[in-house]
Amino acid sequence: MALITLTTDFGTKDHFVGAVKGAIYTELADAKIVDITHEISPFNITETAYVLKNSYKSFPKGTIHIVGVDSELSEEHRHIALELDGHFFVCPDNGIVSMITSEIKPSKIVEINIHDRVESSFPVLDVFVQVACFIARGGNLTVIGKEIKDFKKITEIQPKTNQKQNQIIGGIVSIDNYGNVITNISKKMFVEIGKGRNFKMSAKKHSFSKIFTKYNEVVSNKTYSNQQYEGHKLALFNSASYIEIAIYRSNLKTVGGACSLLGLEYRDTVTIDFTNAPDPEFTILN
Amino acid sequence: MALITLTTDFGTKDHFVGAVKGAIYTELADAKIVDITHEISPFNITETAYVLKNSYKSFPKGTIHIVGVDSELSEEHRHIALELDGHFFVCPDNGIVSMITSEIKPSKIVEINIHDRVESSFPVLDVFVQVACFIARGGNLTVIGKEIKDFKKITEIQPKTNQKQNQIIGGIVSIDNYGNVITNISKKMFVEIGKGRNFKMSAKKHSFSKIFTKYNEVVSNKTYSNQQYEGHKLALFNSASYIEIAIYRSNLKTVGGACSLLGLEYRDTVTIDFTNAPDPEFTILN
Amino acid sequence: MALITLTTDFGTKDHFVGAVKGAIYTELADAKIVDITHEISPFNITETAYVLKNSYKSFPKGTIHIVGVDSELSEEHRHIALELDGHFFVCPDNGIVSMITSEIKPSKIVEINIHDRVESSFPVLDVFVQVACFIARGGNLTVIGKEIKDFKKITEIQPKTNQKQNQIIGGIVSIDNYGNVITNISKKMFVEIGKGRNFKMSAKKHSFSKIFTKYNEVVSNKTYSNQQYEGHKLALFNSASYIEIAIYRSNLKTVGGACSLLGLEYRDTVTIDFTNAPDPEFTILN
Repeated sequence: MALITLTTDFGTKDHFVGAVKGAIYTELADAKIVDITHEISPFNITETAYVLKNSYKSFPKGTIHIVGVDSELSEEHRHIALELDGHFFVCPDNGIVSMITSEIKPSKIVEINIHDRVESSFPVLDVFVQVACFIARGGNLTVIGKEIKDFKKITEIQPKTNQKQNQIIGGIVSIDNYGNVITNISKKMFVEIGKGRNFKMSAKKHSFSKIFTKYNEVVSNKTYSNQQYEGHKLALFNSASYIEIAIYRSNLKTVGGACSLLGLEYRDTVTIDFTNAPDPEFTILN
Repeated sequence: MALITLTTDFGTKDHFVGAVKGAIYTELADAKIVDITHEISPFNITETAYVLKNSYKSFPKGTIHIVGVDSELSEEHRHIALELDGHFFVCPDNGIVSMITSEIKPSKIVEINIHDRVESSFPVLDVFVQVACFIARGGNLTVIGKEIKDFKKITEIQPKTNQKQNQIIGGIVSIDNYGNVITNISKKMFVEIGKGRNFKMSAKKHSFSKIFTKYNEVVSNKTYSNQQYEGHKLALFNSASYIEIAIYRSNLKTVGGACSLLGLEYRDTVTIDFTNAPDPEFTILN
Repeated sequence: MALITLTTDFGTKDHFVGAVKGAIYTELADAKIVDITHEISPFNITETAYVLKNSYKSFPKGTIHIVGVDSELSEEHRHIALELDGHFFVCPDNGIVSMITSEIKPSKIVEINIHDRVESSFPVLDVFVQVACFIARGGNLTVIGKEIKDFKKITEIQPKTNQKQNQIIGGIVSIDNYGNVITNISKKMFVEIGKGRNFKMSAKKHSFSKIFTKYNEVVSNKTYSNQQYEGHKLALFNSASYIEIAIYRSNLKTVGGACSLLGLEYRDTVTIDFTNAPDPEFTILN
């Protein structure tokens, strides 16, 4: 039984998603289709990569992930299918794969070449569904595409460290449903570069000297004991193991979230400066 | 075949829902997963309870309902699993169960105690999914938790009656997709207290002396015969058997709905005063 | 195994959709339920028809489509079930069927008459689900309804041509997730009336003399070679084969889309004037 996920910027008000699901069921009556999201900001592959990176591993090996973001075929944007970490991805070759993982290499990549049979302005429906269903039936990637060695890389959004290894410069890559802002600085990187040193993290005019591991740790933390916790800003390692700047129990639609209350936006810079004095009080729960 | 529902405040643009679904399918390949909603206002357990109360009974007995609202584990918020009315609920112990039903008692409640095996800042993914899948496989609740006698109760949002039994004071607990505002005053309560008496229902400066049972009854009602029905305010017993204040055929995004046009908000008070003269013209369709 | 789709204006934050799905699974444990959309603008049957027209054919024959838009029962709005093009539709008789297709005639239509058994202010839950499940189990339409010859027609939103056959007057029937505006002028009509003639298409103060077949054709088109493509307006035949006015790579929530940037709204008029001089350079890809 095939498991096929959809990650798109189609939204949920138009016929796009319904048409794609109908086409999958027409090909594979017993498929299971999972919406990862259809709310990607239009054409935003950074957001797409963040969502996929943090969800694909939950699915069983062999799951087929269709990516319908910025998928119009062009000279620069080929369509590819690939096997990565035991999962299959059918997507445009727009750099997204390099952003999902820079550590694991795809075991096989093909450039989809069934387009001569399909003239399409809706490639997710007309091409990606066919490819996904072909893979679901156990078909070999090389039948629907030409094997290629490489895919488009995008590295610009990776955080950087300076030569002295006492600074990380990252950025905001996503804003979640609660208005919390997600950076591209992983806990792994923070621990490896920081080595337990004191630090100051800055985003615009806001700074943080502590990174929590749970939202409600802020409540029991002495530093903040005389303060209102609801509405208090904090930095934490989120469930995806990235540094996140949050407002405790925020509501984006009423009082606002970290993004609106702190004035932080997609692509803003987040800097962490480490000092050389080790900090015995700073411990990271693992 | 397990049927598992999800009711969360995760929204649908992030990786949260996808990750949870993937984890369920990894454990239970043939599960059926139903999104009740992911659009609960952040941390709003009143809204959550209203949605669950009015949807869980439609599902077959044995359905497992995961509640992912305000679910971070803390001293005050334990995680519980329980059997209620033939359904299973996996949720934080934050009062929500008492708001889903005050009439039916759970037949078994356990405080989930598998957390020693799981360090998590995403308990729905790491804890609730495991518990739900364990229940789906026929596991006994006492294996994943310690049986407890009671759960947290929240009663403050119940409507009140005065000593003379001629007044109900309730409030607005939800605003629906059409902008209609839902009170916590049930038809059952209205009938029991009202006993067919004349009444005046007030919400801010608006008052109502008739409660309809269908939206389009307003069209055939003589009182309103010379008026435009579209855009007309009315009170009715909604499909969930609660009193609702609506605008006939409203559109929240264009002309507005009852909430915006009448200036009614979540938590506003709604009062019903009954007079002692019985009203022969006031009949309630059953 | 039954395949049942849902197209409603219920939104996804309330209990409505969950309740309907629960009721279907209670009747048919192994049903597959597909959300086409729940984001139809309240009571908007034009939008509903556009979405269904462009998605139903993707589904396998025998699929049952529940339409929950403007479905309250009244004298003017009967409830009907019908077989059309190998698909089943359960919907209000409010003109929607005539807008889904004017070319294919239903092979059987019944007026649902199980209402005497059901008193309901939520007919999708109480009536349509029962009817859909009955059809899914192979039941004959005439058991749950009285066969009728005809259904309500709405023709006003069809585009018109003038007597000289050198003008098409159509309108905007939908605005998609990218903010692009969709007209009711089909490629078929454009080709039949236009016969390869030069033309000028106008919508408010904007005009177009070229209709593309892909969004990114605008990039390689000489006319626009010195311009920024992102943010450039264009007309194209969309994937549903209707004329659409788009902004290349727009984002409705940030910079805006065709609707906001060009000031085009639902129901605005779109006019195409043809000249008698044939245009050798104007070719339409098929």
